[in-house]
Amino acid sequence: MNLSSHLLEAAVKEFSKLPGIGKKTALRLVLHLLKQEQTEVANFSDTISRMRKEIKFCKNCFNISDQERCTICTQASRKRGIVCVVESIRDVIAIESTEQYNGLYHVLNGVISPLDGIGPDQLTIESLTSRVVEEDIKEVVFALSPTIQGDTTIYYIRKKLNKPDLRFTTIARGISFGGELEYADEMTLAKSIRNRLPVDSYIQ
Amino acid sequence: MNLSSHLLEAAVKEFSKLPGIGKKTALRLVLHLLKQEQTEVANFSDTISRMRKEIKFCKNCFNISDQERCTICTQASRKRGIVCVVESIRDVIAIESTEQYNGLYHVLNGVISPLDGIGPDQLTIESLTSRVVEEDIKEVVFALSPTIQGDTTIYYIRKKLNKPDLRFTTIARGISFGGELEYADEMTLAKSIRNRLPVDSYIQ
Repeated sequence: MNLSSHLLEAAVKEFSKLPGIGKKTALRLVLHLLKQEQTEVANFSDTISRMRKEIKFCKNCFNISDQERCTICTQASRKRGIVCVVESIRDVIAIESTEQYNGLYHVLNGVISPLDGIGPDQLTIESLTSRVVEEDIKEVVFALSPTIQGDTTIYYIRKKLNKPDLRFTTIARGISFGGELEYADEMTLAKSIRNRLPVDSYIQ
Repeated sequence: MNLSSHLLEAAVKEFSKLPGIGKKTALRLVLHLLKQEQTEVANFSDTISRMRKEIKFCKNCFNISDQERCTICTQASRKRGIVCVVESIRDVIAIESTEQYNGLYHVLNGVISPLDGIGPDQLTIESLTSRVVEEDIKEVVFALSPTIQGDTTIYYIRKKLNKPDLRFTTIARGISFGGELEYADEMTLAKSIRNRLPVDSYIQ
């Protein structure tokens, strides 16, 4: 794309670095910003750079936060003693938006994946181990992707946390709502038959 | 969406103001930026705000430019005496990327549309009229949308520019490449039959 302005070209280039945004979309976004008031655009760019500069990660659970400790860890109404282990911040947001979980979180910042060079030391497992003891955790809920890497991570953490009476659970796997049975893969169908639930718990 | 950080929330809000970007995409983009180096993100936001602040519009043709006059108007290799009238900067970019046109441009900044409250005075028609005389334009190429508004604008400009020997042309309308004949609308098909071309010019 040959644009008559270097300033415009630079802005398009910056936008097209973002995931899922190609040159044409980037141009559309930049031309949109060009039509906005200067203060609006200044606000846009300030908010972005401030966010990157000032955002913190919770020292306890590694969720994003404006403070040393995130609003989930400090919220009084949260149930203590139960911690949900997730791969990334995004999973925290996804689970929070269901409004079905009222416990604490622990963000691993990835899963164990030797092929990608990610070992247990790069994750926040060490910190999880101390939390389980210090915060007297009774249940660890694994909400990791159903992949070999996810399963390996569950296996590793379980071995590490050998505290008596600690309960380990995982989010339910099965046929998703709206999913057609005949198109479900065998593995999912097999697991969902094996782990069948009483109808009462389903309707509730 | 309930996020544990106000900084993150503000950034997501800013991104979702952009056209075609919803809350989920905005969150994805923000989380991507969060993973980048701080200097990278600062660069992103500086480029955007600088672009909005410093960009100019060419005094001659109203195309975007870094200077008083755009690179198209000042380029020596450009053919003088022919001006292509377009609605917006975007059309200039689209035509330029075909590499089939080597003349000048004139950006109207819209088309006449009484329903939207846009009259000839809000457009750059006055300036076009003077350019035609001053720059001794021989041909005006209309590259406007084939709508009633576009046609009205063509009609109005033609009436205004009553210079003898001035040639008026419009970009060809017809069945687009890859378009199926049977699915083309009647209007387009009718016009493309009436304005049929010698096969030689088509193959070329």
